[in-house]
Amino acid sequence: MAQRPAFAKWLDDTNDVIAVFLAAGQIPDLINLAGGLPAPEVWPVDGLADLARDAVLDHPSDVLNYSPVDGLPALRDEIATRFSKGDLNLTRDNVLIVSAGTQGLSLLGQVLLEEGAAIACQSPAYLGALDAWRPRRPDYRPIRLEANDLDLATSFADTQFAYVVPNFSNPSGRLVEMDQRHALIDAAEAAQTWLVEDDPYAGLFFEGEPLPSLLELSAKGNPVYEGPVVYMGTVSKELAPGLRVGWVIAAPEMIAALKAAKQGSDMFTCGLAQQTVLGAMQKGLSAKGMAAAVDLYRTRRDALLAAMDTHLSPYFDWDVPKGGMFVWATAKDPSLDTNALMQVGLDHKVCISPGSVFDPLGMDRRSVRINFTYNDEARLAEGVKRLAEATKSLVKQAA
Amino acid sequence: MAQRPAFAKWLDDTNDVIAVFLAAGQIPDLINLAGGLPAPEVWPVDGLADLARDAVLDHPSDVLNYSPVDGLPALRDEIATRFSKGDLNLTRDNVLIVSAGTQGLSLLGQVLLEEGAAIACQSPAYLGALDAWRPRRPDYRPIRLEANDLDLATSFADTQFAYVVPNFSNPSGRLVEMDQRHALIDAAEAAQTWLVEDDPYAGLFFEGEPLPSLLELSAKGNPVYEGPVVYMGTVSKELAPGLRVGWVIAAPEMIAALKAAKQGSDMFTCGLAQQTVLGAMQKGLSAKGMAAAVDLYRTRRDALLAAMDTHLSPYFDWDVPKGGMFVWATAKDPSLDTNALMQVGLDHKVCISPGSVFDPLGMDRRSVRINFTYNDEARLAEGVKRLAEATKSLVKQAA
Repeated sequence: MAQRPAFAKWLDDTNDVIAVFLAAGQIPDLINLAGGLPAPEVWPVDGLADLARDAVLDHPSDVLNYSPVDGLPALRDEIATRFSKGDLNLTRDNVLIVSAGTQGLSLLGQVLLEEGAAIACQSPAYLGALDAWRPRRPDYRPIRLEANDLDLATSFADTQFAYVVPNFSNPSGRLVEMDQRHALIDAAEAAQTWLVEDDPYAGLFFEGEPLPSLLELSAKGNPVYEGPVVYMGTVSKELAPGLRVGWVIAAPEMIAALKAAKQGSDMFTCGLAQQTVLGAMQKGLSAKGMAAAVDLYRTRRDALLAAMDTHLSPYFDWDVPKGGMFVWATAKDPSLDTNALMQVGLDHKVCISPGSVFDPLGMDRRSVRINFTYNDEARLAEGVKRLAEATKSLVKQAA
Repeated sequence: MAQRPAFAKWLDDTNDVIAVFLAAGQIPDLINLAGGLPAPEVWPVDGLADLARDAVLDHPSDVLNYSPVDGLPALRDEIATRFSKGDLNLTRDNVLIVSAGTQGLSLLGQVLLEEGAAIACQSPAYLGALDAWRPRRPDYRPIRLEANDLDLATSFADTQFAYVVPNFSNPSGRLVEMDQRHALIDAAEAAQTWLVEDDPYAGLFFEGEPLPSLLELSAKGNPVYEGPVVYMGTVSKELAPGLRVGWVIAAPEMIAALKAAKQGSDMFTCGLAQQTVLGAMQKGLSAKGMAAAVDLYRTRRDALLAAMDTHLSPYFDWDVPKGGMFVWATAKDPSLDTNALMQVGLDHKVCISPGSVFDPLGMDRRSVRINFTYNDEARLAEGVKRLAEATKSLVKQAA
């Protein structure tokens, strides 16, 4: 092999677990409880097919030509209108269209992080966010929102931003309640830092009305929102992740900075996808898709929890998530190593996500994330049974 | 305005000219010779509309679900097959699908550039490449391929990579001839550096057969290409830029690094766009689109050059480009400031790109880039007439 220039240092900070996940895809008859995949049953396939054709025929220039870095104006207006509410006044200057949620997080890293900058990060944290910021090698201050000794003021001080997923956080499934939403905004304002609200599971409330977003709660009735919240949304759950369309809503100064980073990242988001998504929103497909997902996912959550009650209660504790896509379970025995459980699980043809990959510091060995959206009720039950057998065999090995 | 954390330092390195371009879009009856826009007449609109619909109906999972970071396997195979030739053997491990050319350049910066790293950069250089690498604040060593004292060995030594556009470079329209292609490969191998071949204008040869790529010339018959060339291609010219699909072809170790960067940048490229592009390649739309573009663009180049001969020859020198999208002209009088000419041009309702934006060091004040693909023959002639008037008025002001 020829000698070549060294790759950038951040590429050394890899995660072996990802390679194990990928290899798991090759195991026949594996039940995958690890991923965060949607249920294909809820996709409006015929509707999207017609919309994609009409997008090209009716808007050839928007779809096929170069288009604005910050997104199609009509789609930015659609998002501004959808989210404006009460004291929250949004215009297209508050909106940047991005190539799905990951790009929003990546651009945020580019505009706010010099190498080693500090992030106050809800922990456990979304793996994709850790991936997106890895090139800047940030200094993470984990925030455990459930901790008794939580001190947001200290955590937020001198950070470039705080990062939270208030609705059904990935991986924990945790819903941030109203009093803590207000506390997060107050802490961000006191620390004069940005508050990043990542909200991919916005519509996935299984019980009761959705809570207001940090974006909405931080609005002060200005004609154009200028608050500290940087809100990230996506069509991945309400339509389909393969379209790769999302949005950032923030103060115009933040949108302008993110736009400069987007120009050098991919210039603009696929016009065919943007116009198809706009059509889907205008025709109500987004709202229908979300309603169908909520009904199906609620049923599957209940099936997973029933199977866990039957098979896993000797080994794990968990809370019932009120929405989202995941159950987060913690071993009763602190010596049970969930990295090892993932490996033993593969021998039993079941795959789960170990807590270590969601820990910004990589230390957690006691938790697992279990997805309930992708598999039907029978496979969820069978998967949990296999996981219980894997746990038993791991406990025996250790004894 | 609230006090907020500082944005990353690279955002200060802005370019006022871009803002002037954007404002120019608002001037009524402006003739835009500045951009690099394709002719919408060559888009296969009906064919792409049907392909987009069929993509969703026939491949719902590839189009709508999460899909591999490195691209749809069938599309990677299609690219590997298209480019394999003679001693060049490619497999899908040599191919990464990217969200068009800009993303390929951006990912390259992420995996190869620590802050301040050295790039040997063909100069004048593509503005989008400078944008893509700006967050890493690189140290540019301009290479002027036409210079008499060109010393590639010295320029390439201790760089992270060399960057060239061998076919009809943006902005200069220059075609790198065979002897210099070999010299570039030899210099990269001697310096043990990567050689980035950016090839968006691959098919736009107006006269004679296309020259072999650096990728092809550097191949040594290995079963999987392992040479120093990192090749970047795109559908932006053969189909349409709005689809945002491109590819990087390189040694597997480079593809693996770029894939890690892509995972944190946008996870994967829009499935709807990938599957539509694959269909277009399989049905021959790409090849037809390219042939149509070549015929139309040759006619428009000739029209532009005829008008320039008539109106601009007192003020500028230029070479006849053998393909591509641009004529690069240099003022006979070194004191003619082309940044000022852009401004005066706007008063005459014509917009050109000043050389300064393509100079990695930002110094050029003597050159202009003129596009011939977007406007029809009559508007090209009128645009050149207006540009000549603007030049005359600028010369008078200076006298």
